[in-house]
Amino acid sequence: MPADSFEPNPATPYLQPPRDSDATRPEPRDLFQSSAPDLQVLAELSGQNVLSSRQFSFKQIAELCKLAAFLEQIEIWPSHPLDGKIITTAFFEASTRTRTSFESAVHRLAGKVISIPDGSITGAKKGESLQDIGEMFNAYCDCVVMRHTETDAPKRILENLRVPLINAGNGSGEHPTQALADWYALLKWMPSLAAPFEEGDPKLQLGILGTPGSMRAVKSFLLMALNFSDHIEKVTVISEMADPFGQDVTEKLNNANIDYEVTNDIRENLPRLDVIYMNSIAFLGDSYKSLDSRYKLDAESPLKESAVILHPLARLDELDTSLDKTPHNLYFSQAHGAVFIRQALLLAVLGRLDRLPDFN
Amino acid sequence: MPADSFEPNPATPYLQPPRDSDATRPEPRDLFQSSAPDLQVLAELSGQNVLSSRQFSFKQIAELCKLAAFLEQIEIWPSHPLDGKIITTAFFEASTRTRTSFESAVHRLAGKVISIPDGSITGAKKGESLQDIGEMFNAYCDCVVMRHTETDAPKRILENLRVPLINAGNGSGEHPTQALADWYALLKWMPSLAAPFEEGDPKLQLGILGTPGSMRAVKSFLLMALNFSDHIEKVTVISEMADPFGQDVTEKLNNANIDYEVTNDIRENLPRLDVIYMNSIAFLGDSYKSLDSRYKLDAESPLKESAVILHPLARLDELDTSLDKTPHNLYFSQAHGAVFIRQALLLAVLGRLDRLPDFN
Amino acid sequence: MPADSFEPNPATPYLQPPRDSDATRPEPRDLFQSSAPDLQVLAELSGQNVLSSRQFSFKQIAELCKLAAFLEQIEIWPSHPLDGKIITTAFFEASTRTRTSFESAVHRLAGKVISIPDGSITGAKKGESLQDIGEMFNAYCDCVVMRHTETDAPKRILENLRVPLINAGNGSGEHPTQALADWYALLKWMPSLAAPFEEGDPKLQLGILGTPGSMRAVKSFLLMALNFSDHIEKVTVISEMADPFGQDVTEKLNNANIDYEVTNDIRENLPRLDVIYMNSIAFLGDSYKSLDSRYKLDAESPLKESAVILHPLARLDELDTSLDKTPHNLYFSQAHGAVFIRQALLLAVLGRLDRLPDFN
Repeated sequence: MPADSFEPNPATPYLQPPRDSDATRPEPRDLFQSSAPDLQVLAELSGQNVLSSRQFSFKQIAELCKLAAFLEQIEIWPSHPLDGKIITTAFFEASTRTRTSFESAVHRLAGKVISIPDGSITGAKKGESLQDIGEMFNAYCDCVVMRHTETDAPKRILENLRVPLINAGNGSGEHPTQALADWYALLKWMPSLAAPFEEGDPKLQLGILGTPGSMRAVKSFLLMALNFSDHIEKVTVISEMADPFGQDVTEKLNNANIDYEVTNDIRENLPRLDVIYMNSIAFLGDSYKSLDSRYKLDAESPLKESAVILHPLARLDELDTSLDKTPHNLYFSQAHGAVFIRQALLLAVLGRLDRLPDFN
Repeated sequence: MPADSFEPNPATPYLQPPRDSDATRPEPRDLFQSSAPDLQVLAELSGQNVLSSRQFSFKQIAELCKLAAFLEQIEIWPSHPLDGKIITTAFFEASTRTRTSFESAVHRLAGKVISIPDGSITGAKKGESLQDIGEMFNAYCDCVVMRHTETDAPKRILENLRVPLINAGNGSGEHPTQALADWYALLKWMPSLAAPFEEGDPKLQLGILGTPGSMRAVKSFLLMALNFSDHIEKVTVISEMADPFGQDVTEKLNNANIDYEVTNDIRENLPRLDVIYMNSIAFLGDSYKSLDSRYKLDAESPLKESAVILHPLARLDELDTSLDKTPHNLYFSQAHGAVFIRQALLLAVLGRLDRLPDFN
Repeated sequence: MPADSFEPNPATPYLQPPRDSDATRPEPRDLFQSSAPDLQVLAELSGQNVLSSRQFSFKQIAELCKLAAFLEQIEIWPSHPLDGKIITTAFFEASTRTRTSFESAVHRLAGKVISIPDGSITGAKKGESLQDIGEMFNAYCDCVVMRHTETDAPKRILENLRVPLINAGNGSGEHPTQALADWYALLKWMPSLAAPFEEGDPKLQLGILGTPGSMRAVKSFLLMALNFSDHIEKVTVISEMADPFGQDVTEKLNNANIDYEVTNDIRENLPRLDVIYMNSIAFLGDSYKSLDSRYKLDAESPLKESAVILHPLARLDELDTSLDKTPHNLYFSQAHGAVFIRQALLLAVLGRLDRLPDFN
């Protein structure tokens, strides 16, 4: 007999999207069928650290996304591709979303997880150096996924770490696997992005609500966008800050020959945008702060009809739930796909592409 | 050479009870041999959320207990029944006992665990909504076991969660799997409870030391007792509070045609009781409080000779350790059996009954 | 393309030591080839609690180290020796290093882990007794690895725990598996230590920088050293404290017929020492304190040329990083080997020596 206050919800299997929503959930098969993943390209990633969006070439991104699309369509568990491999999730800066996303990816691949969910309960509290923690991890595992509040944390742990490091967020630095999840969502939505630009392909008006210079997810997204510059008409950053990029990113934008603009006028610019990437939460110091909080989106916002929204989540009220069941919602697909793109990345970095089943 | 201050304790395998204690440890085989578990009944639970005691029929409870009794007698590991399945233990309200009980159940069944041991280190700290957390979990796992300080937490997460949710405690709401553990202990102790009442069967005097209205474990126990109303002579609630049930529970007691009484006189009523369910710890607001602290039991209490005590544990001093080695102690069996009834429930909810070995 | 601020580091597999360092990394094969591990001796440990250094005989230590040396040379994963076994890491006093060392050991052996990373989020916070926690653990797992701030914690949990307990540190008591890791490092460095003393064998000048009486790792190291008394010329404790041993340890030193001295003069004594064991961090009360902080070592310290340093880590500044790439550094080997000696111990205690592959 059902409980009084709410109906039981007959569950649907985890791979199936909801039926009662118009949220945009692109099928992975469209991306996968453009062509099978090129494992030779992916083999270049074997044994590599994953520290920055900028270390990925266009081809590597496209092939990772194709492999993710393959993984999103099948049950990979019976292949046990990460058999015998241990991955440590070292979250000195806590996170449910990213940590559990990686742990799920590892478990689906039959790997093992050592979990450090919180920096305050570690040797770091005793004042132990990241260099020593890196030396320690060498004995324990085959790969470290690390998030840390300090931007130079990867540099310090890499003084001694000899197994691959995957950066899951370093202070105000980068968040490269989030950028991969972002672009995976876009490549599923528009598979032509996965190939070099051809005459007649659409060119995207890309908008960013946020501050790349101090928000690592936004920065990584934008830096990865440089690989797709031919597909991009213009990048519009809508921000209250005078210099939202920081000098480093500005130089790269200029070098990539991307047309960009900084404005604070959301109303004027929003209706023109095809893709809106938003993020309002930045970890600054030791707490979360909202920036650009005047720039909120909801179902009444003057969005182009075909526009899609990306948001790395977690969100507060800057992205209203009234958008969740509209076709503008690509952020749920973005979150869902993050597990598969992380599976693809782990298989490549840990050198286990040979354990994949055949791409029929 | 043994250490100075204490003797090493040669361990006995985990399935064996201690030898030096008169605590009541009913054999599971007596329950199991009444008849083999009816898998068709259990299949009704496939894909269901487990939110409240009241969603279980008498038959479902009896068959779950029979399956638990089977699991308590064998090594289930070689069957790997939860192979490839991921269960997230999301304990926004921390708990060692219940979280590790579920995690042990999953591991014995060869499933995988994603562990969120503490709400303070999660996106919830950033203010993320449970609805968004539910959407996130859809990508990560096949089942969520959740404990939360807020009573409406299951309702909120179920707005988006599409995999089964098992409620491990929601504010002052319910704790249905604890009730299953409680009744599993009673059914092993008195296997006739697992069948419809027959003339000549004993009728139980059931006592409750505690406050169902504000203690979720007690409430769930009492609501599950409604299924056994024919086997119950009377329910006596011993409490300081004027209205210990709350209106909701009172209505259900009335509808189930159970004779019940509320009293504050423990001395007068205790000697009459066959089963005493006690709990003194309630999580109210953000801390643990003792209620009814005048009602303590110890080896000197005027208990009926054959009376048994249930307590979900953890305990403070309301249940004295002088009772631990007496036959009144059914609470250790209750705790021990909780792992097996949770195994049975997970197998049913995750649709893996077909992976069980034969019931010889 | 590499990220700006640092070079990607092509990873080497976790079993391989770094190439660019003169740190002392003894090969395990030298120890292993002295003779194969004697499994009959190790079988004595089956089902035993591991509480104190003093419970190990010389033979048991030597055979554990030989087994660890075997495990350090092969991939043990394919044998799945801890298949179906669950180990709980119960860290009521938090620790990254020791907890993840044990969890890595369990995963490599294909066992399962239930992780309690922090005492503040457990039933202990509700005031639950360790006795009750012990009774609970009986249902959940096959072995408990526990660290606790209170010295009598093992005694209390063993009142009810019936599966093996491995003490990972109890207040100012002991840390026996750390001592095993320490002596494993020494036996690899000097394999003649693994056999009874023979004429012509070197006799070691052993130095201790620290306070055995209040530092559990140092105490366990020293107590285990008693097994090697024939190989030891003298033990020199360099400490500011008047009675650094405590009465208990002093008696044992006297009974073992080991020549020892207490001094506060580091400069005079350091050049004579072959092995220096140092530790400066003691957990006293509820925080970490440095003792003997005037006694620091760095690359300028007047060390004997062939001297090696052990330190259980974590370290602050008492052991300077300038020593890391010198042959004096045996502490990285010590940390690295800890995983393998813990694997050996778990296999012995859990009675799974029969699952080992042949020693060729």
